[in-house]
Amino acid sequence: MTETDPSNSKDTFGDMSPDEFRRHGHRIVDWIADYLANPERFPVLAQVEPGFLKEALPDHAPEIGEPFERLLADFDRLIVPGITHWNQPGFLAYFATSGSAPGILGEMLSAALNVNAMMWRTSPSATELEEVTLTWLRKLIGLSGDFSGVIYDTASISTLCAIAAARENVKDVAVRERGLAGTPDHPNNIFLRMYASEQSHSSVERAGITLGIGQAGVRKIETDSEFRMDPKALVHAIYEDRAAGWTPFCVVATTGTTSTTSVDPVPAIAEICESEGLWLHVDAAYGGPAAILPEKRWILNGCDRADSLVINPHKWMFVPVDLSILYCRRMDVLRNAFSILPEYLRSKTSGEVQNFMDYGPQLGRRLRAIKLWFVMRYFGAEGLASRIREHIRLASEFASWVDQSPDFELTAPAPLSTVCFRANPASSRDGLNGEELENHLDRLNEQLMEQVNRTGRIFVSHTKLNGRFTIRLAIGNIRTAEPHLREAWDLFNEALEQIRS
Amino acid sequence: MTETDPSNSKDTFGDMSPDEFRRHGHRIVDWIADYLANPERFPVLAQVEPGFLKEALPDHAPEIGEPFERLLADFDRLIVPGITHWNQPGFLAYFATSGSAPGILGEMLSAALNVNAMMWRTSPSATELEEVTLTWLRKLIGLSGDFSGVIYDTASISTLCAIAAARENVKDVAVRERGLAGTPDHPNNIFLRMYASEQSHSSVERAGITLGIGQAGVRKIETDSEFRMDPKALVHAIYEDRAAGWTPFCVVATTGTTSTTSVDPVPAIAEICESEGLWLHVDAAYGGPAAILPEKRWILNGCDRADSLVINPHKWMFVPVDLSILYCRRMDVLRNAFSILPEYLRSKTSGEVQNFMDYGPQLGRRLRAIKLWFVMRYFGAEGLASRIREHIRLASEFASWVDQSPDFELTAPAPLSTVCFRANPASSRDGLNGEELENHLDRLNEQLMEQVNRTGRIFVSHTKLNGRFTIRLAIGNIRTAEPHLREAWDLFNEALEQIRS
Repeated sequence: MTETDPSNSKDTFGDMSPDEFRRHGHRIVDWIADYLANPERFPVLAQVEPGFLKEALPDHAPEIGEPFERLLADFDRLIVPGITHWNQPGFLAYFATSGSAPGILGEMLSAALNVNAMMWRTSPSATELEEVTLTWLRKLIGLSGDFSGVIYDTASISTLCAIAAARENVKDVAVRERGLAGTPDHPNNIFLRMYASEQSHSSVERAGITLGIGQAGVRKIETDSEFRMDPKALVHAIYEDRAAGWTPFCVVATTGTTSTTSVDPVPAIAEICESEGLWLHVDAAYGGPAAILPEKRWILNGCDRADSLVINPHKWMFVPVDLSILYCRRMDVLRNAFSILPEYLRSKTSGEVQNFMDYGPQLGRRLRAIKLWFVMRYFGAEGLASRIREHIRLASEFASWVDQSPDFELTAPAPLSTVCFRANPASSRDGLNGEELENHLDRLNEQLMEQVNRTGRIFVSHTKLNGRFTIRLAIGNIRTAEPHLREAWDLFNEALEQIRS
Repeated sequence: MTETDPSNSKDTFGDMSPDEFRRHGHRIVDWIADYLANPERFPVLAQVEPGFLKEALPDHAPEIGEPFERLLADFDRLIVPGITHWNQPGFLAYFATSGSAPGILGEMLSAALNVNAMMWRTSPSATELEEVTLTWLRKLIGLSGDFSGVIYDTASISTLCAIAAARENVKDVAVRERGLAGTPDHPNNIFLRMYASEQSHSSVERAGITLGIGQAGVRKIETDSEFRMDPKALVHAIYEDRAAGWTPFCVVATTGTTSTTSVDPVPAIAEICESEGLWLHVDAAYGGPAAILPEKRWILNGCDRADSLVINPHKWMFVPVDLSILYCRRMDVLRNAFSILPEYLRSKTSGEVQNFMDYGPQLGRRLRAIKLWFVMRYFGAEGLASRIREHIRLASEFASWVDQSPDFELTAPAPLSTVCFRANPASSRDGLNGEELENHLDRLNEQLMEQVNRTGRIFVSHTKLNGRFTIRLAIGNIRTAEPHLREAWDLFNEALEQIRS
């Protein structure tokens, strides 16, 4: 096989030769090493227009295979300019899903082995390494041994599976067998309703839609002034709904909401769920890793009383996407919600071992545990804790700059690594008040965010709090350090200055 | 950072150094190259006992980080022996999900970039490369330009999304808003039912369960003597169900069923769906890539009249897991079935561009298109076709050996790359007949399969056809060639000889 004839003649079969793989693989490793050494040479938010790539690439696949060198050249020339660099330390938008080098090395091995971790026997190491690493992490965040875990791709799926288990757990309605509506000769006439705060992630409502519960079946509970679910309002809603003919079945509490990272009062919510017989699922997708720190363990207070909890190592634990974990105290119920065993998937070991395909909507499963194992071993518990602690310290620093500035203000408490703030300069307030002032500040802050994002130096996102535009700065990238935040702060102040003049 | 102190002291932050990444990365590339050069040095089916890895690893994460060298040594020593080698050319079980070197190289870059492809702006290249590669593949398999596509992880999710779109498409029932059961003051009293052949994949029934339609809402349609859905039985079922109060809404046809790779008569089924107003989803997860061959394009006959179709490049197109594609003629309906846009995900470009997060249950999405792009470009259309064609030729060869043997028999036609067969030696038939003989053959063939799998040379799986045990040999691995099948055939004959003596 030569470079100009890459194994594509009609009577040539098989893969790229191992030697050719070795050559390109080494080149890619060097590319990645250079990239990780200095991702700041790229603008964090891609500076391209819609259609840029579709116009640059042919509209059909090549008939004859191409030399791999040409693919790599196109990757550099066409793909990289259109990448928004989540690895850039200036990536402070959404929740920065931060990879790390040991995680990338783990992904390389997973891609090479290319196993489907659906059953124990389709790769025993995959199943058992999943069990081992999930026990390790469970202990790190201080969750009790009543919980077992399973790895999914995303928190959206983890939460969907948790709610599916909650649905399966409802007495007097055989959802799995007869569906939510029941059958023509045996209608259900049971109307399921679940609860989550109005600050809960969109994946909760989306799971309700997917599972057939519908938007009407997902009731949003008011939050207090610090964006935490109000337990009194939850109780009130449950009673009101029962009286109206609903069957409450599940509550989703969040420790670390997406907009403000507020932490719902899980102990009080757990109390309610226990006395009302509702499944409690905790969305700790972002906040969970903070519980590795002794001083932050409080964020999982009460979670041992939950039925399930999602935590995303791909969010704030330096594991490349995707890797989300659902911990569950009722794995039997979770299994009943999904398990189907056709003949072609039966094996002698069925029953003796776990087959993770039984615990979710997906049959096929990548070998995701290796990257988690590498990250936990390479950094160690202390190394993970020190990095997460530093992110919290940096957020707290940034919040203090905002707080001390006459031109900016915090719009929510910042208990973790995310700061919500907005510009509210005295000069803007001249002659404006009430609604008029707020509308002006919405426009000002949106303009400010766009101006800062256009620099390519940092990338922040936004949310609305109490209906008002607020800028969100989220720290989670393993490469983000104090100088990046100082630069971010300078950029905001400079942009505000420019807008004013 | 030194090897014995991997960046884990309390005041050290950041990632593994780029130089250290480079060193380990090169070592891993060499490992992979050696592995791909000769995966046959490992037994295909892992020869370990349940618990082997859990017992070998500590029960908690290390407090202090470990040198990466130690991790790699443990990978070799502990993980590899428990791997079932899907890369082994003797892997002939399930559907061999076959990776290839260009696909692995693509995964390396995706892991390094670590973008979340949820929105256009979170990496424009990810969204546009997904659009481009899906257009390329659509043309390769001859599907009309009415179809657009989206990449998911697995066929289970692709099919779930298709059925969710079908559900969303039902008139007179606002499933998304009010759920399948409706609300206490507005019950639905509509009972959805979908149809798939009794040979359809378990993911169809599982999707029905997940989506709240329930097992009762998934009616299995009889198949003919060659395991293809009987269109007359389908029509009969639809009319029977309507009369009984059901609302038929969706049919799933399969081109390449899991047990026998039978191809449902899609043109006749499309006709029925059109006249009855039902959504037609085609499961071409395994069979779809064969349509790249002009002489096999017939397997997608009628599919242009389907509403959606799933095809898995990670099954038989040399792309590492996971990568499943849903093509859909009604992307607006698919979007309505899932889209939710909270403030923190709004962006200026919303509306002008595609945000793939809107089309499924998952918000987070890996950048999967690179590996598909690399595989299509490196092999080219002709290179892909020649490999798939060779697999079909090999299966046909194997089937002819079975057919000509006095001791074995085919148990289903083998139109693609999978052969269903069993031993049925004349010697076994002495004095046995009917049920007694069949029970004997079930035991004989199970024993035969286990004996052959124990050799570690090949790995085959099984199914039941007409209630009887049948061995399945599926070719899909890019490294599988004629000598491997000759060896497989010898192993079966030797094992039968041993059992007989």
